[in-house]
Order: sequence, then structure tokens, then C-alpha cells
Amino acid sequence: MLFYIPFKPESPKTRLSRLLSPDERVEFSFCMLDDVYSAVEESGHDPVVLTTHRLDGYEPGFDLGYETRLCPEPLTPAVNSVLDEAPVGVVMSDVCIATPDSVLRLVERGGDTDLSLAPGRNGGTNAFVSWTSEFEVDYHGTSYIDHLETARSRGIDTSTVDSFRLSTDVDEPDDLIEVLLHGEGMSHDYIADRFEVVENDERRVDLRRLDDGG
Amino acid sequence: MLFYIPFKPESPKTRLSRLLSPDERVEFSFCMLDDVYSAVEESGHDPVVLTTHRLDGYEPGFDLGYETRLCPEPLTPAVNSVLDEAPVGVVMSDVCIATPDSVLRLVERGGDTDLSLAPGRNGGTNAFVSWTSEFEVDYHGTSYIDHLETARSRGIDTSTVDSFRLSTDVDEPDDLIEVLLHGEGMSHDYIADRFEVVENDERRVDLRRLDDGG
Repeated sequence: MLFYIPFKPESPKTRLSRLLSPDERVEFSFCMLDDVYSAVEESGHDPVVLTTHRLDGYEPGFDLGYETRLCPEPLTPAVNSVLDEAPVGVVMSDVCIATPDSVLRLVERGGDTDLSLAPGRNGGTNAFVSWTSEFEVDYHGTSYIDHLETARSRGIDTSTVDSFRLSTDVDEPDDLIEVLLHGEGMSHDYIADRFEVVENDERRVDLRRLDDGG
Repeated sequence: MLFYIPFKPESPKTRLSRLLSPDERVEFSFCMLDDVYSAVEESGHDPVVLTTHRLDGYEPGFDLGYETRLCPEPLTPAVNSVLDEAPVGVVMSDVCIATPDSVLRLVERGGDTDLSLAPGRNGGTNAFVSWTSEFEVDYHGTSYIDHLETARSRGIDTSTVDSFRLSTDVDEPDDLIEVLLHGEGMSHDYIADRFEVVENDERRVDLRRLDDGG
């Protein structure tokens, strides 16, 4: 099955500005993309980067042998433009602690249903597989709730995948803690080269920039 | 199987002080406890509240027909005091969007392993089942990583349950968003009576206190 991975290499991850420079944010975005691409590939499915811009020229350090489809539109119309290819999967490029197993759980639920959704923190929809061309997305704050409602109103049988890994997209500084603790790929290594997890006085978890990082 | 639910009714959830009054935080803690207790019970297992204080006298509005064991010690020694009863489960009282299914996934993984862990956000250990009396806990910031290391050093075969619901404990204001969006029990209703999820100007998710709440 094709799994589209929407990606926008321009000014990514601005909410990480406190911790990462603009160049680092671009590099880190490519690391996350690579991890998601690999997870889909190792699950036995076929990843395609649905990218707003051509990828060459951004990151000469990366092997950009990705399958790509260029789509300069915003996220919602870009994803909707591929949904008539159902069955089709979509997974966000920053769900970088996804594993092949978690991707497979999305696909397996389809035995009974026409749509399999993985909620993200804060109401997002981090990944889904649709077996029907009747489904349509609208990404925004509580998209997960609205996607459930869209499915219900169109008579699309829906299941949910209860996955910590798929629920974790990387937007905020705290999300990098999950990358450090649970990641296994390039994004883990990129952050581990620059930060360590420390416990503060209250034995709570924080990130500390390593002196030689950057 | 017995599932212990550690609980401390004294001054709970101080990090929610910005949103909930001290009385509300006690009430809400009992709501969360009730949801966790019900999830374990509905999974076919046997919940026991491992409580630092007697529960009567706190919340006259609750049916406190819970199985309880009084243990006035801090969390780590309290939990360690029951682990020689293995097989035994432990689930935190604030993992309030847990479902019977997610509890069962902890138990099912035990076919192959002696320990089944559910990581929480920020490195915590939100739930586990141990089939060996060799395991011991030490709760603090990155307890999940240390629990994996304890298990490895003692030769305890370990599996991990990848569950968004079990990963979600309620400590911070943002966690209440998950309760509103994914909760199904008393804690959902308690928060839904007082807050609504709104999208701010950037189409990101926030909580707003209802005028008639409290």
C-alpha cells in the first residue's frame, strides 16, 4: 500500500526555535522524515514523500533516494488530492518514533473497517489508512475529532489505533524528550548529539544542551 | 490478577493549580481513580487502591466501595511492598483514559515475558505487570529507562505496550485536553462540566473555562 508522508522543508518546526537554529531545524526535519520513511518501508509498505518543494538542494548530507510526489499546496488539499487512490495510508513526517509495528497496526485494523485513525497529542491526526475514497481530511487543532465526525456522517466504519508512538509528533521542546528516550533512528541520534535528558531538583525530566553540540 | 492503584488524596495534582482549585483537584483525583478502577475491573482483573490515607472523609459524593490497602509510605516503597505477590499489576491512578482493552494489552504481553511495561510521557512508567518477584521499581523522572535497565541487569525478559491511553497520565494543564477528547468516564465529565476545548487564532488547541463552571 502507498503511504504518503506530507513534508514541507521550508522553515520547519518553528516551535523548536528555542532549542534549535533554523539550519538545525531543517536538518532535524529531514532526520524525522527519514525515520518515518524507513518505518513505512520496513513495514513492507511503500512510502512516498508528498512534498511542497523539491528536496534536492536542501540537505546535501542526505541520501535523497526517496519516492516523491511534488504538491505545492497546503497540507489539507495536498492530502485530499491523494485519497482517491484508496486504499492509501498517510503518516506525518514528524511522527519520528513510529516503528514498522505501529505502522502495521494501522493497516491491520482495516480487516473490519474502512478507516483506521491514529490520534496525536492535542487532538491531531498523526496517521491513518483509508480504504474508501469517501474520506476527506481537514487538518487543524482538533482534527481527530472532526475526522471521526466526517467518517460518521459519511457512514465510514472507523477504528482507532491506540499507539503511544503514533500519537507522538514532534512540535514542542518537550517532544524531543520522547525522541531521546524512545527514538531509534536518525532523529534520535541528531538530538542525542546535542542534548541530554537530565532530572531537575524535583526529579522531573528536562533537556540540557551539550556543550559541544551544534 | 490483582492490579494495585497507588493513590494519595492529600494535596493532589498541584501542577493543575492554575486551572483547578484545591477542592476541585481532590475531587478530580477521585474521578480519575474511579475511571482507572473501573477500567481494571471491566478488564476482568481485580483492582486494589493502594492508598496513603483512608479514603472515607475525603469525598462523601463518591461510592467508596473500593478494595483498598492502606500504605502510608511514599510511592516507590509502597509499590515495592506488593511486588512479591507476582503476578501482579500496577497502574497509576491518573492514567484516567485507560480502557479495559489497554489494561488487557499489558496482561497479554506476558505470554512471552516476565515484565510488561507501559511508558508514560516524559519518561515515566504509567503501568506494568510483573510475573516475577525479582522486579523492583524506583519512581522518578525517567523511571521507564531505569526500569528497563533494572530488568536487563536482573535477567527479566521485558516487553513494552505501545499505548497512547496508557502513556497519558494527567499532570499538566495540557493533559486535560486528552481527558476531554479521549476520556469516557467520570474524569471526562468532571472536566467537560468546567472546560471546553477551543482553537486559538493559529488553529491550535487550548482549554477555556466555562462561565458557569466550578
